[in-house]
Amino acid sequence: MEKARIGYIGVGLMGLPMAARLVTRGYRVTAYDIARDRMDAARRAGAQTAASAEEAARGADLVILNLPTTEAVERAALGEAGVWSAVKAPQLIVDFSTIRPATARELAAKLRAATGTGWIDAPVSGGPPAAGDGTLTVMAGGSGEDLARAMPLLEDVAARVTHLGPVGSGLAAKMINQLLCGVHIAAAAEAMHVAERAGVSLTTMHEIISVSAGNSWMWGDRGPRMMQDDPPVTSAVDIFVKDLGIVLDQGKLMRQGLPLSAAAMQMFLAASGLGHGKADDSQVIRAYRALNGKHKA
Amino acid sequence: MEKARIGYIGVGLMGLPMAARLVTRGYRVTAYDIARDRMDAARRAGAQTAASAEEAARGADLVILNLPTTEAVERAALGEAGVWSAVKAPQLIVDFSTIRPATARELAAKLRAATGTGWIDAPVSGGPPAAGDGTLTVMAGGSGEDLARAMPLLEDVAARVTHLGPVGSGLAAKMINQLLCGVHIAAAAEAMHVAERAGVSLTTMHEIISVSAGNSWMWGDRGPRMMQDDPPVTSAVDIFVKDLGIVLDQGKLMRQGLPLSAAAMQMFLAASGLGHGKADDSQVIRAYRALNGKHKA
Repeated sequence: MEKARIGYIGVGLMGLPMAARLVTRGYRVTAYDIARDRMDAARRAGAQTAASAEEAARGADLVILNLPTTEAVERAALGEAGVWSAVKAPQLIVDFSTIRPATARELAAKLRAATGTGWIDAPVSGGPPAAGDGTLTVMAGGSGEDLARAMPLLEDVAARVTHLGPVGSGLAAKMINQLLCGVHIAAAAEAMHVAERAGVSLTTMHEIISVSAGNSWMWGDRGPRMMQDDPPVTSAVDIFVKDLGIVLDQGKLMRQGLPLSAAAMQMFLAASGLGHGKADDSQVIRAYRALNGKHKA
Repeated sequence: MEKARIGYIGVGLMGLPMAARLVTRGYRVTAYDIARDRMDAARRAGAQTAASAEEAARGADLVILNLPTTEAVERAALGEAGVWSAVKAPQLIVDFSTIRPATARELAAKLRAATGTGWIDAPVSGGPPAAGDGTLTVMAGGSGEDLARAMPLLEDVAARVTHLGPVGSGLAAKMINQLLCGVHIAAAAEAMHVAERAGVSLTTMHEIISVSAGNSWMWGDRGPRMMQDDPPVTSAVDIFVKDLGIVLDQGKLMRQGLPLSAAAMQMFLAASGLGHGKADDSQVIRAYRALNGKHKA
């Protein structure tokens, strides 16, 4: 049976390995990206390329969006030369981007009204390596019917797909995970900073907490990198400026005060403002050092 | 070889099972507590009892303090009929209480100056069951010499003893663990509350996060109890009012701003102020519901 034709909008850090994987799984992929070098990379990975989102979407069975910001998804969906002018039912739009849940609901409603097409929000968890080898986790929102149609594709890129409810639910789940991730990284930095100021061995402290009730996945993963001056970047400070920004934007829309998310956001913002936005997110600890001083009290 | 004579000040929720365990391990234990019913319970567990902290300490090889607040430890150590008037070197004081690290350093210095006795801060992690069966974790501060003398006793009550440094270091480590525990419980409540307002299934959300980067020990333990209206109390809201209070008091002494600890403290305080201080600490989620409303946005 012939695999679907895919219009793939956004072949960046995550989109390129996912598009490349779809090519190797037999899909016919037409890619578009605003960056010319990403288009070159997509061609090298076996995709066709198009001159616009509109052109990539035209005639595709499934249109994938995989973009870095809420605004980029809005532009690709509804902007000039966006997919809206090319799609019509039964085409289906799958958005792998991490954006505001409320925006996904708005875009889905507008596209359905204008074109009849369905929309699935399918934010992923897992980095570029998982994107390349099909071991991502997908949190999906959309109608059961749309999700059933997209499922073969989702299962080609992810090891685990959870359907959480209507459009926006996948993004709500992703947002809740990112809320916890962001707060846990900042909490780990706060704890490590207290330890360094109290003169307690950070290595011993890390060992004790790792087998205690204070443990978290982030403590295990980011904690050791907080003890390094310039660790390799696995995920940057500015990613949490973005993701906690989504949490707080969505909280504002829902009129929800979220004191811990807000406090954590200030520390990531401060770290970024101090010039460490591209540093590993463990380096949010530098904002604590700037705030309170580096040295033992 | 004859086991040491122990003066045991404070036979409450943790002290009683620990004192009882020491009796069964062959120590001669003389207990004191301000509550008469705790003294009765200590006698039933095989301890002698004394009329004051001073009397319990007199002639003991090791004097143990196991009290609920920083102020209670100060009173037992230096107050009227406190241990100060009964002890002299080579007696050794072991404090299992969770108090401010700075206060432990002050008390240790005053006792040493007045009586020559050593002081070990040895806060424990693990609840009453672990206290009864000798599987606690002890985080210890004190001189290497004092710790070597106390080690047989510590190993009789704990499965794991870590020596972190001079007096106060054990409490600093405990405080750092409690900082993380308190922030993680409040973060879990914040995340669960966003999920309930966003209309995402809490059960599904709990499953997803449990295998994602947002996971924490507290999410696994307290998360399911946040979905219950009136869960059994394993540790009360007011315990974190106390323990985050120690974190913030010590932060104030050290002139350290701790934004996440401060935000988490406000939520535990609010939960307590709403009348839920004796409820399970998972019920800090009630403060979020009071703040933002219970219902879906």
